[in-house]
Amino acid sequence: MGKCKIGIVGFGTVGTGIYKILRSEVDLHPILKEIEIAKIVVNDVNKKREINFENNLLIDDPNILINDPSIDVIVEVMGGIEIAKDIIMKSLKAGKSVVTANKAVIARYGSEIYETAAKQGVYVLSEAAVCGGIPIIEPLKRSLKSNHIKKMIGIINGTTNFILSKMTNEKADYKKTLELAQNLGYAEFDPTADVEGHDAADKISILSELAFGGKINRDSISTEGISQINLKDIEYANKLGFEIKLLALSERNHINKNDSLALNIWVGPSLISKSHPLATVEGVNNALLIEAHPLGEIMLYGPGAGSGPTAASVVSDILSLHANTMKNNASIDPLLSFNFWRNCHIIDSSQITKKNYLRIICIDSPGVIGKIGDVFGINDVSIESIVQLDASADKAEIVVITHEVSNGSFEKSKEEINALNEVEIIASQLSCI
Amino acid sequence: MGKCKIGIVGFGTVGTGIYKILRSEVDLHPILKEIEIAKIVVNDVNKKREINFENNLLIDDPNILINDPSIDVIVEVMGGIEIAKDIIMKSLKAGKSVVTANKAVIARYGSEIYETAAKQGVYVLSEAAVCGGIPIIEPLKRSLKSNHIKKMIGIINGTTNFILSKMTNEKADYKKTLELAQNLGYAEFDPTADVEGHDAADKISILSELAFGGKINRDSISTEGISQINLKDIEYANKLGFEIKLLALSERNHINKNDSLALNIWVGPSLISKSHPLATVEGVNNALLIEAHPLGEIMLYGPGAGSGPTAASVVSDILSLHANTMKNNASIDPLLSFNFWRNCHIIDSSQITKKNYLRIICIDSPGVIGKIGDVFGINDVSIESIVQLDASADKAEIVVITHEVSNGSFEKSKEEINALNEVEIIASQLSCI
Repeated sequence: MGKCKIGIVGFGTVGTGIYKILRSEVDLHPILKEIEIAKIVVNDVNKKREINFENNLLIDDPNILINDPSIDVIVEVMGGIEIAKDIIMKSLKAGKSVVTANKAVIARYGSEIYETAAKQGVYVLSEAAVCGGIPIIEPLKRSLKSNHIKKMIGIINGTTNFILSKMTNEKADYKKTLELAQNLGYAEFDPTADVEGHDAADKISILSELAFGGKINRDSISTEGISQINLKDIEYANKLGFEIKLLALSERNHINKNDSLALNIWVGPSLISKSHPLATVEGVNNALLIEAHPLGEIMLYGPGAGSGPTAASVVSDILSLHANTMKNNASIDPLLSFNFWRNCHIIDSSQITKKNYLRIICIDSPGVIGKIGDVFGINDVSIESIVQLDASADKAEIVVITHEVSNGSFEKSKEEINALNEVEIIASQLSCI
Repeated sequence: MGKCKIGIVGFGTVGTGIYKILRSEVDLHPILKEIEIAKIVVNDVNKKREINFENNLLIDDPNILINDPSIDVIVEVMGGIEIAKDIIMKSLKAGKSVVTANKAVIARYGSEIYETAAKQGVYVLSEAAVCGGIPIIEPLKRSLKSNHIKKMIGIINGTTNFILSKMTNEKADYKKTLELAQNLGYAEFDPTADVEGHDAADKISILSELAFGGKINRDSISTEGISQINLKDIEYANKLGFEIKLLALSERNHINKNDSLALNIWVGPSLISKSHPLATVEGVNNALLIEAHPLGEIMLYGPGAGSGPTAASVVSDILSLHANTMKNNASIDPLLSFNFWRNCHIIDSSQITKKNYLRIICIDSPGVIGKIGDVFGINDVSIESIVQLDASADKAEIVVITHEVSNGSFEKSKEEINALNEVEIIASQLSCI
């Protein structure tokens, strides 16, 4: 069998992980010996590094890789958005397949990238872009393709799950836990993308395109983070039998007149029953629950990030390309490539139906639960439970959990509740599954 | 693109499920329309059936399929062992790829079947043979191939998990629960293969060959079932923070002088901590935990059996073959095919090290815990906990949980404990992870 010569762009934690796997002496499948690292592109070839590289392995110009006809696959693990996208596009246009771990690029420029790859007869694989080491993209492209996918719910951001787990288990304050996550390297110096849900929105966008086959407008995804989560909400949720997790949800809704499939997609902090399989996902782990017909419900669980797991996914993509190009044939494997095959659109936020949790601070008067109940009743919002917790001095806190209702009716109820004389403030609102 | 013409052998629940997927009108990936059911082999073509078949779709002779050059793929879902194996072998020899859901055949005749497929340049795919609808075989062949797999632990038999879940949740008796499982169709009329662990041993044998690359001697797998499990053991395990599950474990041990990889493989009822991810797997669900380097720990969870999930896996294998043969090339995809690439052997049971649970019925005398502790100490068996439970009249029940110790030392300790004057009987022994 011939060798597969790869060029790696970027040598941070993921690049180092890839190098370690491919140069490892442990007992690995022999096919790994067929992958040869031809060049590694870094910013500064003279920088002192842990690894002693052989002569001329490091270069600083990605164009050398792109223009080298002996390179079979370009591996983009440099991060960032615009420059990385540029390198991916140039590589595809040069007729090279690309492996990338870059979720931000795929979520923003997926359709341009997939189309260019299809036109050039090459592949762009990105298993590492979603949930690190967990095989998710390949199963969606292959094993699950015989199914009608109905819904995906995931814990797909490790940073926020670490923070919420810590807050729950140790009654730790949000700000302090975020600082700890930063010190441990689980959160970045600017944590916005993680804690405000943008990273999870990138990932659910990529997964939705693969599962439902249509282009997703990434910016229409209703996205809320965890920075407003209060220890009180966690305490009350626990008391009522729930955990609070940052969830990403994507669900098939209806097919409209133009034959476009409407999708309900959102990212937000949410209560889930302690007996739900996702409730036990702790720390930086990720998990994705997929509901499909005729399959039923499956869950894929594992490490959502980290040098080793992410590198393992990148290398498995390289192996897939190697196995495929060994067939030395110009036609494209339709289970390895990705093409949009239908239209999709995201439904308007007001049409989303879901369960909700609401914490209301009000004056401790006997009629208040009834009044709140009446408002929901008038607006056709069915209630699962309404509980008064923590009455102190003249204040009371009331927690309401609704059944599945439309966002429109729920928002209207909220406005009317806010206007009640007895109600001081709606302290928090979360989703509930 | 050309059509893929398949012939299905057997039309029980799985065959019916395949037919329903391929003739479904719901919104499925368009590639499914390229699969054409050319013939279905049944015992009696005149039997009254739920489905109205078009003329001449049903036949009663599998040789017609095998000898028909227009058939691309043979799908064996008839069950049984010898006749099914014969049809698989004949199909491969006729140059046709095979998809099968038959774990018993693959576990027994895997090496003969894989070798014949390799020699003929065709594939034999069996995703549905292990854990119904959960993608496990394909991830082991593809996504996880960049890893050094260390250990797999699974709940891979739905019948026994249903029985144990029911016994735990409802304090239900083993015999009654088995009868219920039979009435619900979760257990067969002769439940031996399931309840005695043989089905789980078939599956862990197949998974071990894929994960570690060497031929496994199926009959050397130490196998114990759940028919001896007592409600008392479940009660005590729960009290101490454990669940009892029928586990299958396969673990890399050492490489011997002949370069053969020693594997520790067993099937048996086992205590697992309630906080372990496998502890939450309830009812007929299955799950497999895989520990690998550099990936870490991942878990694949879902429905372990059933017409729909199993059929979905069969159809995904058909799609893989279709995508592959579309490339119209004689070379073989090394990630889709399977060849042994190293030697493996199962280590002797006495060399297995594991944690153990022991329930001892003895005379209620003050010195007995000390005496039992002494026996373990002399034999170098380190103890995690020793608890006296349920002292009634003059009898006491003592539960011991050991640390990880060799089976040899543990068995010796057991004999000596049995010989103590105070000890009436060792009522039960289970593994513990």
